[in-house]
Amino acid sequence: MNIHLSVFFMIEIVGTIAFACSGALVAIKKNLDLLGVIVLGVTTAVGGGMLRDLLIGIHPPALFVNPVYVLAAFVAVLILFAFVRYRRITMEALSSLWYERVMNLLDAIGLGAFTVVGIDTAIGAGFGGYKFLMIFLGVITGVGGGILRDMMAGETPAVLRKHVYACASLAGAVSYVALRNVMDNGWDMILSALLVVVIRVLARHYRWNLPRAM
Amino acid sequence: MNIHLSVFFMIEIVGTIAFACSGALVAIKKNLDLLGVIVLGVTTAVGGGMLRDLLIGIHPPALFVNPVYVLAAFVAVLILFAFVRYRRITMEALSSLWYERVMNLLDAIGLGAFTVVGIDTAIGAGFGGYKFLMIFLGVITGVGGGILRDMMAGETPAVLRKHVYACASLAGAVSYVALRNVMDNGWDMILSALLVVVIRVLARHYRWNLPRAM
Amino acid sequence: MNIHLSVFFMIEIVGTIAFACSGALVAIKKNLDLLGVIVLGVTTAVGGGMLRDLLIGIHPPALFVNPVYVLAAFVAVLILFAFVRYRRITMEALSSLWYERVMNLLDAIGLGAFTVVGIDTAIGAGFGGYKFLMIFLGVITGVGGGILRDMMAGETPAVLRKHVYACASLAGAVSYVALRNVMDNGWDMILSALLVVVIRVLARHYRWNLPRAM
Repeated sequence: MNIHLSVFFMIEIVGTIAFACSGALVAIKKNLDLLGVIVLGVTTAVGGGMLRDLLIGIHPPALFVNPVYVLAAFVAVLILFAFVRYRRITMEALSSLWYERVMNLLDAIGLGAFTVVGIDTAIGAGFGGYKFLMIFLGVITGVGGGILRDMMAGETPAVLRKHVYACASLAGAVSYVALRNVMDNGWDMILSALLVVVIRVLARHYRWNLPRAM
Repeated sequence: MNIHLSVFFMIEIVGTIAFACSGALVAIKKNLDLLGVIVLGVTTAVGGGMLRDLLIGIHPPALFVNPVYVLAAFVAVLILFAFVRYRRITMEALSSLWYERVMNLLDAIGLGAFTVVGIDTAIGAGFGGYKFLMIFLGVITGVGGGILRDMMAGETPAVLRKHVYACASLAGAVSYVALRNVMDNGWDMILSALLVVVIRVLARHYRWNLPRAM
Repeated sequence: MNIHLSVFFMIEIVGTIAFACSGALVAIKKNLDLLGVIVLGVTTAVGGGMLRDLLIGIHPPALFVNPVYVLAAFVAVLILFAFVRYRRITMEALSSLWYERVMNLLDAIGLGAFTVVGIDTAIGAGFGGYKFLMIFLGVITGVGGGILRDMMAGETPAVLRKHVYACASLAGAVSYVALRNVMDNGWDMILSALLVVVIRVLARHYRWNLPRAM
């Protein structure tokens, strides 16, 4: 749990950028202006961690005290916005299979990293004894930003429909809570985050879906 | 205030199940997958208490520390989902008058129980001197889950339109705040919760509505 | 920072009323009932301050302890509702240019006052050292109520589309954070709030807009 932190930091930044781009893309498609694109992009990137901190009473949420993730998201959104506006990239390209595939992989990496980091934060705040809480906080850190993005955009959260998206986060969270007393040196985090990525990639490739009632 | 707690616990569980089923039904009608149905169902059931705890600074919200209500909601949603999926119950039955009538009664019981329990929690947290706060917390405990459900489903909260729904909760909250220094042995809670149920049942039967501007 | 407080209080009340009316109008147009109109109106008026207090851990949010703003919003909403219902004012008048212009000015005054008061609250809570946090809290105090209003009404927040609305708040927030160590006697607050009003009025008149991606 206490090693590989700089590697994890880089992975988190990758995830932050992927999340920010997904939020910005929703805003661009909704024809929001520059500010709307920034707000939706940054909220998607850091919203999950903010919800987690509010739930466990970290005031103010960490993102405000150390705004490095906000900054990364902000810059990523600005670049994407400029690329679209000045025709360096077309909306066709942003809807293309390769773009979606790359972003999906980066997004999966972010989902994995955020999930285990969320649990780590809960442990650091003294909630290492509450398994249900830890798992929930891991998942909300992973999927909370996307939920806020969709609620602000006036849509039913995609996480409630997308191929086993929250389930991948859930599997990683359960894995980390189970492994953390067994392994050390951060292997519990890395394996659990990796599990999230593998499930997401497989789910997309084989079009896994959860059952519906009708 | 300190007796009848086990009776109240059972009433709360009934309400939790009714709330969970209402959330699950919205999700099923929106064609969400299993996870979406679970999330919407459980959020409807425990969301009000979560909002209350966040507002008065109970970190983490009680539902995470003692997840019995989450569990009850989860099981109820699973059963409803399975019944619909395996055709033990048809959507026609779920839209039928008798189903609606039964669920409405259970929902009213839940609304009454949640309202007074919400106030009780506020008193326990040391806010017994703030009348406005107590009443607000009672109402938000009662109707908050439904508001979250509708916001996540992308709809205008039904509570803002439904026959005197929040007003019933409000009446019960005012009643409990008024009675709690007059009665004891929990009669203040029971009478106030009962008031909510009576108003809800009458409002539905006589189609009471609040005035509109136009 | 410590003078002109009674003037500021009056300005805040003006802003509260303007915000409440904007929320009530959205609810009336959505054909919500009396309760819906009250909830949406009051939430618009005090929602921003509530979000700010939740973020920095003021439990319960100040509006519950000292409900004067809630009361002002409540009365304003009731009067507007009664005027519309009893045909003292027509919907045409409420959609007319002069009504919109007056409300826009009052709304701008509220936005300015809320922005600087939000920062002031953050400083009072001991966060005077975090520039990013202070600016964010100022803006969320200013625009948070409108965001909640639109999310509850099931619409994409207008703040993400309206002529440089949040940008005006942002400019005022940056101004106050920059000026507060330079000026005193409240001039830093007044000039910053005035800046918000001027930007809003100019933005409306000259139809300033932020760029879009497409």
